[in-house]
Amino acid sequence: MGNSFGQIFKVSTFGESHGPALGAIIDGCPPGIEIDMDFIQSELDRRKPGQSKITTQRKEGDVVKILSGVFEGKTTGTSIGLVIENTDQKSKDYSHIADKFRPSHADNTYFEKYGIRDYRGGGRSSARETAARVAAGAIAKLLLKSLGIVIEGCVTQIGSIKCHNYLELPLSKAEENIVRCPDPEIAERMISLVQEVKKDGDSIGGVVSCVIRNCPSGLGEPVFDKFQATLGQAMLSINAAKGFQYGSGFSGVEMRGSEHNDEIYLEKGRVRTRTNNSGGIQGGITNGEDIYFDVAFKPVATIMKDQKSVNEKGEEVIVSGKGRHDPCVVPRAVPIVEAMAALVTVDFFLRNRSVKLSD
Amino acid sequence: MGNSFGQIFKVSTFGESHGPALGAIIDGCPPGIEIDMDFIQSELDRRKPGQSKITTQRKEGDVVKILSGVFEGKTTGTSIGLVIENTDQKSKDYSHIADKFRPSHADNTYFEKYGIRDYRGGGRSSARETAARVAAGAIAKLLLKSLGIVIEGCVTQIGSIKCHNYLELPLSKAEENIVRCPDPEIAERMISLVQEVKKDGDSIGGVVSCVIRNCPSGLGEPVFDKFQATLGQAMLSINAAKGFQYGSGFSGVEMRGSEHNDEIYLEKGRVRTRTNNSGGIQGGITNGEDIYFDVAFKPVATIMKDQKSVNEKGEEVIVSGKGRHDPCVVPRAVPIVEAMAALVTVDFFLRNRSVKLSD
Amino acid sequence: MGNSFGQIFKVSTFGESHGPALGAIIDGCPPGIEIDMDFIQSELDRRKPGQSKITTQRKEGDVVKILSGVFEGKTTGTSIGLVIENTDQKSKDYSHIADKFRPSHADNTYFEKYGIRDYRGGGRSSARETAARVAAGAIAKLLLKSLGIVIEGCVTQIGSIKCHNYLELPLSKAEENIVRCPDPEIAERMISLVQEVKKDGDSIGGVVSCVIRNCPSGLGEPVFDKFQATLGQAMLSINAAKGFQYGSGFSGVEMRGSEHNDEIYLEKGRVRTRTNNSGGIQGGITNGEDIYFDVAFKPVATIMKDQKSVNEKGEEVIVSGKGRHDPCVVPRAVPIVEAMAALVTVDFFLRNRSVKLSD
Amino acid sequence: MGNSFGQIFKVSTFGESHGPALGAIIDGCPPGIEIDMDFIQSELDRRKPGQSKITTQRKEGDVVKILSGVFEGKTTGTSIGLVIENTDQKSKDYSHIADKFRPSHADNTYFEKYGIRDYRGGGRSSARETAARVAAGAIAKLLLKSLGIVIEGCVTQIGSIKCHNYLELPLSKAEENIVRCPDPEIAERMISLVQEVKKDGDSIGGVVSCVIRNCPSGLGEPVFDKFQATLGQAMLSINAAKGFQYGSGFSGVEMRGSEHNDEIYLEKGRVRTRTNNSGGIQGGITNGEDIYFDVAFKPVATIMKDQKSVNEKGEEVIVSGKGRHDPCVVPRAVPIVEAMAALVTVDFFLRNRSVKLSD
Repeated sequence: MGNSFGQIFKVSTFGESHGPALGAIIDGCPPGIEIDMDFIQSELDRRKPGQSKITTQRKEGDVVKILSGVFEGKTTGTSIGLVIENTDQKSKDYSHIADKFRPSHADNTYFEKYGIRDYRGGGRSSARETAARVAAGAIAKLLLKSLGIVIEGCVTQIGSIKCHNYLELPLSKAEENIVRCPDPEIAERMISLVQEVKKDGDSIGGVVSCVIRNCPSGLGEPVFDKFQATLGQAMLSINAAKGFQYGSGFSGVEMRGSEHNDEIYLEKGRVRTRTNNSGGIQGGITNGEDIYFDVAFKPVATIMKDQKSVNEKGEEVIVSGKGRHDPCVVPRAVPIVEAMAALVTVDFFLRNRSVKLSD
Repeated sequence: MGNSFGQIFKVSTFGESHGPALGAIIDGCPPGIEIDMDFIQSELDRRKPGQSKITTQRKEGDVVKILSGVFEGKTTGTSIGLVIENTDQKSKDYSHIADKFRPSHADNTYFEKYGIRDYRGGGRSSARETAARVAAGAIAKLLLKSLGIVIEGCVTQIGSIKCHNYLELPLSKAEENIVRCPDPEIAERMISLVQEVKKDGDSIGGVVSCVIRNCPSGLGEPVFDKFQATLGQAMLSINAAKGFQYGSGFSGVEMRGSEHNDEIYLEKGRVRTRTNNSGGIQGGITNGEDIYFDVAFKPVATIMKDQKSVNEKGEEVIVSGKGRHDPCVVPRAVPIVEAMAALVTVDFFLRNRSVKLSD
Repeated sequence: MGNSFGQIFKVSTFGESHGPALGAIIDGCPPGIEIDMDFIQSELDRRKPGQSKITTQRKEGDVVKILSGVFEGKTTGTSIGLVIENTDQKSKDYSHIADKFRPSHADNTYFEKYGIRDYRGGGRSSARETAARVAAGAIAKLLLKSLGIVIEGCVTQIGSIKCHNYLELPLSKAEENIVRCPDPEIAERMISLVQEVKKDGDSIGGVVSCVIRNCPSGLGEPVFDKFQATLGQAMLSINAAKGFQYGSGFSGVEMRGSEHNDEIYLEKGRVRTRTNNSGGIQGGITNGEDIYFDVAFKPVATIMKDQKSVNEKGEEVIVSGKGRHDPCVVPRAVPIVEAMAALVTVDFFLRNRSVKLSD
Repeated sequence: MGNSFGQIFKVSTFGESHGPALGAIIDGCPPGIEIDMDFIQSELDRRKPGQSKITTQRKEGDVVKILSGVFEGKTTGTSIGLVIENTDQKSKDYSHIADKFRPSHADNTYFEKYGIRDYRGGGRSSARETAARVAAGAIAKLLLKSLGIVIEGCVTQIGSIKCHNYLELPLSKAEENIVRCPDPEIAERMISLVQEVKKDGDSIGGVVSCVIRNCPSGLGEPVFDKFQATLGQAMLSINAAKGFQYGSGFSGVEMRGSEHNDEIYLEKGRVRTRTNNSGGIQGGITNGEDIYFDVAFKPVATIMKDQKSVNEKGEEVIVSGKGRHDPCVVPRAVPIVEAMAALVTVDFFLRNRSVKLSD
């Protein structure tokens, strides 16, 4: 269970790190969306390992194929099958940890839950699973593009190095450096930090921030499916995510209501707010302002150091670091955060279609 | 849409702030659970307004009645109908804002979405809706109690006053003061702050922290329905919530992997971790350690000050504060956070029942 | 589980035969629908017992109250709470069967499933539960009315007395006689049969037929949620239903394709079919022709005769018939069939709103 | 939408008749089920075209590959990806009907719904889609086998030739003849009929009957998700299905209650019924007796005769029969009916696991 996301634009995924392939089915994609395969592939390339000197050197082609739901370049409204073959599976790499529980990995919890597990590269718990999300999210982005909605993510923190002013920066610039930080100077400092951490065989966490621009008002549903609630679920479902905040977030706690409330005014007949502590959402429903949010990622658990642990037989063991590792996955998390944001936005857009009969 | 929560233990709610009643249906509650009406009512009393000098003086009886699904004091496995009548509806109180959009309320977004709205007390967007959640959550707590699982929340921050060491304090003590902070000294400072804010006709935010103790390992589902993802959705669906973090949360970002990883060891044959930066969850699945998390709440939007805004006709107006207001809802949010945590835990517990056929 | 129906216009119900009340929540009803309480009540009156000499003489007021989701006479888009109090509960009537399993009732299966049961009047398994469906269906009908869609049911068979030509008869005439058969002569014969069966203390089955007229094309979803599949589920979920067929149904089996295929032609630019063996549905999707179908109902299990059975303790017992009984529930099933058809149609209509973005 | 089936054992499918591949994801399959690839393939072979002189001569390999969720021959509890490549796609075969609506096919309704369609072989509306269901159903059958539950289908009617006594015949014998009828004499007559119909370039309908044996009591959920309701949905979702009945079905209508009620007795401490008009289900919940039901299939719409119709441009056209066709798909529908019955049974079995906490 738990392998599907969305109510109308529903994505279901499958695939382990070292199985033959991973993939997804998108059910509920409207017909007539032009499928730009180059764009979809470029999104996968933003996520894939080995893309820069600061990421893991594992090479995965991550070539996506569409098996159904598209005819003569356009979606037909029927379910879309996507598949990405695993081509760089070095299963023997994992024999040394076949029955060991790596600290802060899901080895032990999967074993507790299922009594059986595919230990190769973490199996289903591997972040490789997110490749399928990025592929599905790319199709969601194509749909959003036709509606004029834009989603842009970037890295705003690595370790204790922060980029405070990202809302004022041109986020597209973030793609110009390998940490995906929109402030070039801070990016340099982040890159140095990651290289240092890598040299130590260690890892470091970070924050991805994201903005959804030009989102129409009225998206999101009252009570349990508030826009921010589903967005939060989407983000917290990403591997290594530890926290989520939107608008003023945790810092809003310290403000007074008179300061935090967003004054409402009219701009060319449209209801707008002067400040945006609300992060574009009121009562769980979008108000047309920018939706912005942060996702905290822990330092990845795979490190090149010996760690004490336990194995399946209940013996104390040492898990030693070896092979390739990613000192900081946060830059690669940017397209994943964007993909999940796209899935949330598309789904709420389509859910909202049933609300007003006269539109 | 959006008025249901849960996959197996599914709660659906209805009710506006000033309609005749609000209530819930619980579908999927197992049979044989003893229903302690006094306990359920006591949970509602923890949430209700007017309970102390620092909350709103609105009086709501919040008396819950069970209409079905319980026979001779025990659940029967059929759907449970719950109803709470609204007895203190002063609808005329709201005539002055009937067509005005209150800043940072959902007035405008509901109007944009539906083209019609019940303006009395915010209608469905009112936090009064959470009474139904607390009632349903109380039944979830009774089920969890039979499994030995305990959920305890408290207030750990109001404005900039923080209680850092709550994990080491006896959380049950939190009920002994009106801000529900487990550190009595800090509680006093918080109470002074809220009184000061109240005098100013203003409001202030805060953080509710919560621990789920004695939760079995194996709960939560891979990929999209990770324990923390659904827990995050649950929390972010509460009115005024702006952020969620679990385990090391946002502060984990600054740690190195070697420091953040939780060393695994054996304790009487049981796999345990020495630290708990993971917050009791690995790969989205519980590992048997305490699950702890924080929810940030903004200062409530209703304040006793004049604010500029706009009305339904597109005219600029002044929204003036009048009537009763809650300067800080955070203490009243504690039972709501616990209720949602109980719903999440019960639902994952029941979902997990289908995983191992041989249990 | 199992107490909800629908994907967007989602109805959840609660309530036992002899509890305080039964009711429903409708989630996903669009805003702006005018709520005609007299119409809703009139639908419940068509279902209620004691309405004629051939039904049970139990008297149930079946007065429906709306608790939320309606403001100033119109739906607001938020969830609608409905409640119907049980006023004629004679629980002692059931003491003689408190631990006995009545043949062909759900007494034994509920006991097997839950280990506990509310034996009064069948508890949740009572057809009294359908009152909540009729109330929700009445609101669905109001929505359909605004779209010009009409749903009309009637009785076309009781025992072996059949009305073959119902598609050619004015179905509204069915309401003019107490068996709800559109052919007055056959109605007379049916009434005589039911009276004879009643005198014998026995019961008899029948068939309800129903037509959905003026349904737009394009409703229904490929593969598992074909219009007829969900319609069939809806009908087979009604108490005592044993079979469902649509269009040519079971008799279509004997036809050749050349005879069964519906020739397509143009009528004023609209694609139509000359015959309608398809019953208005092709590939699970409506084609704009009349949707017609039949539901078979068994003779109700409650009879005024002694029957051998077993009790909860595993002893052989005699279940004796006493009290009030309905010799033939089929006429009362007509509004239930219509209500379920309305729920199916509304839900598919709303689901289809998300398909074409440009509408 | 509509491409998923099941609540816990959830199957989602994709794929068009003439796309690169079709497939499925199974979410919620318990871990530890041994995957017998030969058995899965043999089920697909029972469905595939070209298997006998009375079926279409199209050749499709229908080779299924498992892409995930299975490790060292056993399910791991994670989602199972299945893919079946399309190898015999002769797309040019369909150019003559590219813009024509074939009578009683879904060509027109898909075009109405989506405004675009993959016309090759019916695209998503092709019964080729059922290959994915059979593959998923085969895995469900492996799970049921481990529980001792057996599902057996057969053909009991073709045209007007009926096999009345199938409940008394060894259904496994049905596999010994090409029409899958358990009565060898009637099978011969059916084969002659199909050959005659084929010679005429026409088609003929039939009935598939099916029995679920050794199903535990307690499966199925009250109200909307009654066992028979979901079973009916499952069957009516199969291409060309027009009706469903279980137990006494439509013929039960003519019986009196005293005759139809199934007398309850004890057999070695187990509650049983002497007759089984209930078809193994009471109040929507299984009682441990055999579950038996019938599914009516219309004559397939593809025939080798000229038919009048209309094209996408709104012009009157002739659709001429050419190529390969199946005069009677009913024998090939047997494994599909069984597969869907297996999916329903497994899902209700798993749903029921959450009901009794003490099991």
